[in-house]
Amino acid sequence: MTAPPNRSQLTARFHSVRQTTEQLCAPLTIEDHVVQPEEFVSPPKWHLGHTTWFFETFILKNYGKNYKPFNEIYPYVFNSYYESIGDRVLRKRRGTLSRPSVEEVYTYRKHVNDLMPEIIASVSESDWQKFSFLLELGLQHEQQHQELLVTDIKYIFFCSPFKPAYQKHTQSASAAPLKSEYIKISGGMHEIGHRGKDFCFDNEIPAHKVYVEDFTISNTPITNGEYLAFMEDGGYKRFDLWLADGWDTIQRLGWQSPLYWEKVNGAWCEFTLAGMHKVDPDLPVCHVSFYEADAFAKWRNERLLTEQEWEIAARQLTKEPYKGNFLESRNYHPLAGEDNSAQHLLGNSWEWTSSAYLPYPGYKPYDGALGEYNGKFMMNQMVLRGGSCATPQSHIRASYRNFFQPETRWQFSGIRLSNAV
Amino acid sequence: MTAPPNRSQLTARFHSVRQTTEQLCAPLTIEDHVVQPEEFVSPPKWHLGHTTWFFETFILKNYGKNYKPFNEIYPYVFNSYYESIGDRVLRKRRGTLSRPSVEEVYTYRKHVNDLMPEIIASVSESDWQKFSFLLELGLQHEQQHQELLVTDIKYIFFCSPFKPAYQKHTQSASAAPLKSEYIKISGGMHEIGHRGKDFCFDNEIPAHKVYVEDFTISNTPITNGEYLAFMEDGGYKRFDLWLADGWDTIQRLGWQSPLYWEKVNGAWCEFTLAGMHKVDPDLPVCHVSFYEADAFAKWRNERLLTEQEWEIAARQLTKEPYKGNFLESRNYHPLAGEDNSAQHLLGNSWEWTSSAYLPYPGYKPYDGALGEYNGKFMMNQMVLRGGSCATPQSHIRASYRNFFQPETRWQFSGIRLSNAV
Amino acid sequence: MTAPPNRSQLTARFHSVRQTTEQLCAPLTIEDHVVQPEEFVSPPKWHLGHTTWFFETFILKNYGKNYKPFNEIYPYVFNSYYESIGDRVLRKRRGTLSRPSVEEVYTYRKHVNDLMPEIIASVSESDWQKFSFLLELGLQHEQQHQELLVTDIKYIFFCSPFKPAYQKHTQSASAAPLKSEYIKISGGMHEIGHRGKDFCFDNEIPAHKVYVEDFTISNTPITNGEYLAFMEDGGYKRFDLWLADGWDTIQRLGWQSPLYWEKVNGAWCEFTLAGMHKVDPDLPVCHVSFYEADAFAKWRNERLLTEQEWEIAARQLTKEPYKGNFLESRNYHPLAGEDNSAQHLLGNSWEWTSSAYLPYPGYKPYDGALGEYNGKFMMNQMVLRGGSCATPQSHIRASYRNFFQPETRWQFSGIRLSNAV
Amino acid sequence: MTAPPNRSQLTARFHSVRQTTEQLCAPLTIEDHVVQPEEFVSPPKWHLGHTTWFFETFILKNYGKNYKPFNEIYPYVFNSYYESIGDRVLRKRRGTLSRPSVEEVYTYRKHVNDLMPEIIASVSESDWQKFSFLLELGLQHEQQHQELLVTDIKYIFFCSPFKPAYQKHTQSASAAPLKSEYIKISGGMHEIGHRGKDFCFDNEIPAHKVYVEDFTISNTPITNGEYLAFMEDGGYKRFDLWLADGWDTIQRLGWQSPLYWEKVNGAWCEFTLAGMHKVDPDLPVCHVSFYEADAFAKWRNERLLTEQEWEIAARQLTKEPYKGNFLESRNYHPLAGEDNSAQHLLGNSWEWTSSAYLPYPGYKPYDGALGEYNGKFMMNQMVLRGGSCATPQSHIRASYRNFFQPETRWQFSGIRLSNAV
Repeated sequence: MTAPPNRSQLTARFHSVRQTTEQLCAPLTIEDHVVQPEEFVSPPKWHLGHTTWFFETFILKNYGKNYKPFNEIYPYVFNSYYESIGDRVLRKRRGTLSRPSVEEVYTYRKHVNDLMPEIIASVSESDWQKFSFLLELGLQHEQQHQELLVTDIKYIFFCSPFKPAYQKHTQSASAAPLKSEYIKISGGMHEIGHRGKDFCFDNEIPAHKVYVEDFTISNTPITNGEYLAFMEDGGYKRFDLWLADGWDTIQRLGWQSPLYWEKVNGAWCEFTLAGMHKVDPDLPVCHVSFYEADAFAKWRNERLLTEQEWEIAARQLTKEPYKGNFLESRNYHPLAGEDNSAQHLLGNSWEWTSSAYLPYPGYKPYDGALGEYNGKFMMNQMVLRGGSCATPQSHIRASYRNFFQPETRWQFSGIRLSNAV
Repeated sequence: MTAPPNRSQLTARFHSVRQTTEQLCAPLTIEDHVVQPEEFVSPPKWHLGHTTWFFETFILKNYGKNYKPFNEIYPYVFNSYYESIGDRVLRKRRGTLSRPSVEEVYTYRKHVNDLMPEIIASVSESDWQKFSFLLELGLQHEQQHQELLVTDIKYIFFCSPFKPAYQKHTQSASAAPLKSEYIKISGGMHEIGHRGKDFCFDNEIPAHKVYVEDFTISNTPITNGEYLAFMEDGGYKRFDLWLADGWDTIQRLGWQSPLYWEKVNGAWCEFTLAGMHKVDPDLPVCHVSFYEADAFAKWRNERLLTEQEWEIAARQLTKEPYKGNFLESRNYHPLAGEDNSAQHLLGNSWEWTSSAYLPYPGYKPYDGALGEYNGKFMMNQMVLRGGSCATPQSHIRASYRNFFQPETRWQFSGIRLSNAV
Repeated sequence: MTAPPNRSQLTARFHSVRQTTEQLCAPLTIEDHVVQPEEFVSPPKWHLGHTTWFFETFILKNYGKNYKPFNEIYPYVFNSYYESIGDRVLRKRRGTLSRPSVEEVYTYRKHVNDLMPEIIASVSESDWQKFSFLLELGLQHEQQHQELLVTDIKYIFFCSPFKPAYQKHTQSASAAPLKSEYIKISGGMHEIGHRGKDFCFDNEIPAHKVYVEDFTISNTPITNGEYLAFMEDGGYKRFDLWLADGWDTIQRLGWQSPLYWEKVNGAWCEFTLAGMHKVDPDLPVCHVSFYEADAFAKWRNERLLTEQEWEIAARQLTKEPYKGNFLESRNYHPLAGEDNSAQHLLGNSWEWTSSAYLPYPGYKPYDGALGEYNGKFMMNQMVLRGGSCATPQSHIRASYRNFFQPETRWQFSGIRLSNAV
Repeated sequence: MTAPPNRSQLTARFHSVRQTTEQLCAPLTIEDHVVQPEEFVSPPKWHLGHTTWFFETFILKNYGKNYKPFNEIYPYVFNSYYESIGDRVLRKRRGTLSRPSVEEVYTYRKHVNDLMPEIIASVSESDWQKFSFLLELGLQHEQQHQELLVTDIKYIFFCSPFKPAYQKHTQSASAAPLKSEYIKISGGMHEIGHRGKDFCFDNEIPAHKVYVEDFTISNTPITNGEYLAFMEDGGYKRFDLWLADGWDTIQRLGWQSPLYWEKVNGAWCEFTLAGMHKVDPDLPVCHVSFYEADAFAKWRNERLLTEQEWEIAARQLTKEPYKGNFLESRNYHPLAGEDNSAQHLLGNSWEWTSSAYLPYPGYKPYDGALGEYNGKFMMNQMVLRGGSCATPQSHIRASYRNFFQPETRWQFSGIRLSNAV
């Protein structure tokens, strides 16, 4: 259970997180808020409403005196997957809804935002610990959707024949790329998982002991240049490098490169939130699926790390407060070069691990409807670690477990290897 | 070939038709313009752009001096199905596009609208006949999309959990329903198809001779009340009434009633452009598929008419100028009671015929890209006749052939029967 | 209603038809009887059982004294599509059934065959007309399945990587190909449909008057050589030649030639029931879909005939008893050259017409379950006329209406054109 | 690498294993060998051929002097999934092949069987270790297909409307069911994986150290009676018990019970290889998916074991030679009651673990084409342990890792729980 924060701190954090979400949507047209080019994308409007619904459902309905729902139909529209909460619009139908309008969603946000300070101020001391946890959970939840907003907007813009830019291109301020080398980490008994009073998700606990052998971890993520060498060596044509499901996937979908890469006049270009640009060989490769990360590792005769190894390394190599290329940096793209967050282990790009997303020993989901938050997804997904350039800094930590199906690649997902067997 | 109209008349008609389209969209929010809940629906924004693209492609590019395309990507976005014109956004992907914005589409419309008067004025006499035909074709095309706008908006609003109303409910001004009776029409040799100098589509010509036996035609369309009797008699449960493909369709899609019907508190209600209302038993039934029309006819031991019979009857029973319940009436729903257009043969609801949509003997499609307008769809579709409450009055005539797949029912499509064998 | 035949004649015909079916299966292994490579194919074992079930259901159950079903589960296995008769194995699941064995199906056939003579002998005079019609219907039904057996066996063998031959290759005894010319047929009022006491299906009646203009009909079907010219002229690449649904079909399925054609060492070969052979340019093209027939006609600036025109021509150009290349000829492939059946209008290959399969004016389906025989399929199908090399001679006539979806091509279906507009 | 066995022992084992396969098919009709009711089932004929192809491909082609393939097309027919070996029939098309016949497949088996003794006798000493490993791999491979034969035949017979029995019902010789209790196993550092010279698959090595906490394991598998209690408590209706993918699966497929269960006259019956029988509450439940095993465990507030825990327990609780309910017992169904193989940990039913199927640390696949045997399937599958009543006794061991997708349930797969958190 987390340490109860100060009421005014929490109020300030509430407003800050909520504003960040809206700032992310500021460059969008109204029409950009509405569309859903693939089922895995949600319309920005929906993110704006869903995060608000989360506070309404789990805070206002429980702690607001005589709280009446803002709109009786909104729960049907903005519930994501909580079976306990009732029926809802099918995920793939989110882009078919023109109502509520963007303006109405902002009114909804304001309605909830305006009520929150008084509720934060008035919750009893006895309720405070549980309340403040719920509120923080809502904020962490909204931060997750901030990352999804960035990646969904990127996908929406990419699907447009106009290939619009979300922001101006900013020359990366990054220094020359680091020289790649492998860091040795000692094995033995280690503790994995979150311990302490700070917030974490239920899937990060209980902390528990694991045994690992000595291993190595590269100090750098794989770059576009390294990935191009794989492509040029026929990486996408050699079935021996691929898991059977991965081989099926690349055949079926015709993948020949990472997502967002297109050949323009013979040169590989990459769609970014600043538009189409030539692929920079020094930048970390991103938007690869687990299957591609795994095939690349096999091609190199190296391997991905397990999530346990990754966390052990990250605990040794990084320290708080993390500095790095996070959402706040507004790069919305991985950077090369040295930074202060330990070779980009945190920020920049998520890193696929070789671990399936499964419960930790002794795992207990949250009580009630929130029990659906993490646990029910622990099947057919792989763990990613470390956060990305779309992750808020206050949202990430060494024990954080992200998870996606192995064919997923619209997140900022990259590759880091171990060269020990 | 049609008779060349006067230049100023055509200019006036151009502006009038174009304005009508925009008036139809006036009640929409920006967001309403963007969504596409099913593949058969197009976003209103797309209709606004596509009709404009039609004029740009077939008029401005050919008759505008040094005309430069408004935007190089628009043809890719707004081409519907013209293979000759080049690649285009897949029909089912129209709702994934946030750009161009609604405002940009209106700018595009204005751009084209502003250029047209001068072009109309300056086309040489020798080109006039061909030019004026093309322009009229563009206007008839836009009128077709006006009807689609009405039916697509209806579907979009129906899919909204908020079930918004497009307009206020207007008490139908219609008189008491007509007493149903069967009119006898003499058979023999008749001419079918369009003859004369007025505009018609290529699928209405050549006019040609057909032989039919004596037949009857009801003076009224089938009403909701009559259709309810079919439903209550187990019409949707009796496979013997249905074509095999129809039976498959209603099983697969779970149809138990016309589209837009829902039981609310035990009473059948119908979604209209004025919102949800109780089903009025005196109004014509609409939003039925061919399969339902055919099954209903079998249940009554009657039959649908062939398109030849329908046209022969309509020529005898109606006369120009047609009065009736058309788009201009702004009812956007069929009416009951007597009117001046021959028992609703024209306007109100399209009527399914028992004829497959096939070329008339000696049929020749338009030259060039416009040859794709009608001919290539002459397969697996059934002919509807008579226009509807969403059809502009100047767009319909007795020889007009509409066509849809037999499972289609989001158009205003109803039933009229013959009781002769 | 048909003229009642003599009891002994009918008994003889019964045994003859039943034996023919079994002779068709004689070259098969047991395993060949079981498989179903596509939903449109039925396992030969199923045809053997289904035709028997038809007699059991419509004759033995009604006319056999105290008849007990041979096996209680067989109706579930061998009912094709009769909703009135009850549940049944899904069509696409027919190839999943190993039981009953081929031997058991033959025992079932013998059981039914053995009972029939006594029943034929003992039916009362008053029942004879109805009974003999039902029996003849059962025999005509079995003849339809004889044709399907030939075409299904061909498809099954084609799907085998071993490409086995069903029979030895027989040099076609056909003379030099006819010189192609167009025969003029006078238009005006004609009667279409079956008239007289001989057997016909319900879809061939009532005979009725139609008006047609003068037209022409080729004296020869289109040959492989002519079709190759279409292919070599880019016929499969030119969207302007194709109906929209046809273009979609050939894109989706990757069609570049008729079914059964494959390029072997640079030369077009064709799989036949005698194995793979070089395409003979003088033979009629077959195994083309309606879409291909229609595109070919457009490429030639000619057209398919309507079914009315075809029947008018066939009545003038052929006479009974028909001689030609039928099932009894055991060629199982179209022949070139002159024969005695009027330029192959009957036999050789079915010919696609430009007519949708719709009921004749005044059409009445059979009573009871047999009403499902034809009527419920009158949607989204095109009419073929004339029979093929897999059609029994006693099964075909000028008024015979075959029908398939326009993308169908595993039947022996070919092309004959009119060059009049 | 395994210890080289004696040549005559290996020859004897070769013949024994090959005969067992054929004995399993002895009760089948020819037709039973051909069908494939679902993609996950293979026709028995295919198993007979594929296991033979394995020896031909990996032994005869490499060790037979001047060996000529038995048939050039067989590799195309009988290759399962080895991309390295070349093209092959799609898995889902195996049931569309009537050729080769069952008799030809037996001839193929005899051909390979007859050549093997001489080859075994003549391989050089220097090649013997590698050769004997390959041969043993071929035999272990054939034993895997023996299990699949049993489960595929069961599914094929179940899909038959006749519900035939493969064998006579044998009263289970099992004693009264064991009283269920939880055995405590001490945690700490343990070794997992295969060590030693006996045969094992590549996925069982390297042996490696793991740390686990103390845990418990039930001495008995979950019984039908216990599972019925879950069903009667609404287990299939409570989404809170299910993984999201599992909930989707049971909704989509309409699962309400284990596979093979059907309600007959109000009583739950179960299809077995001895036909339909009432569900015996004392027998272990089987034919449940991982999703059902996991939901059941959640309903009991207990949990599945990890594969590490399971192996640690099995090493302590079982000893070789294993006695139990294996293929050789010819029960082909789980038994209740005490036996000599440690509470059915080995034999009876496979037990779902909570572990994803992933490579062990340092995993190396076999060289060459055999590298496709296991490694490429390490994604989206869960590990099962312990073997079943369809597993040959000489094929199973404590370190054996079976794996299937979590929705799989046509194998004999059951549930064993731990009650420690």
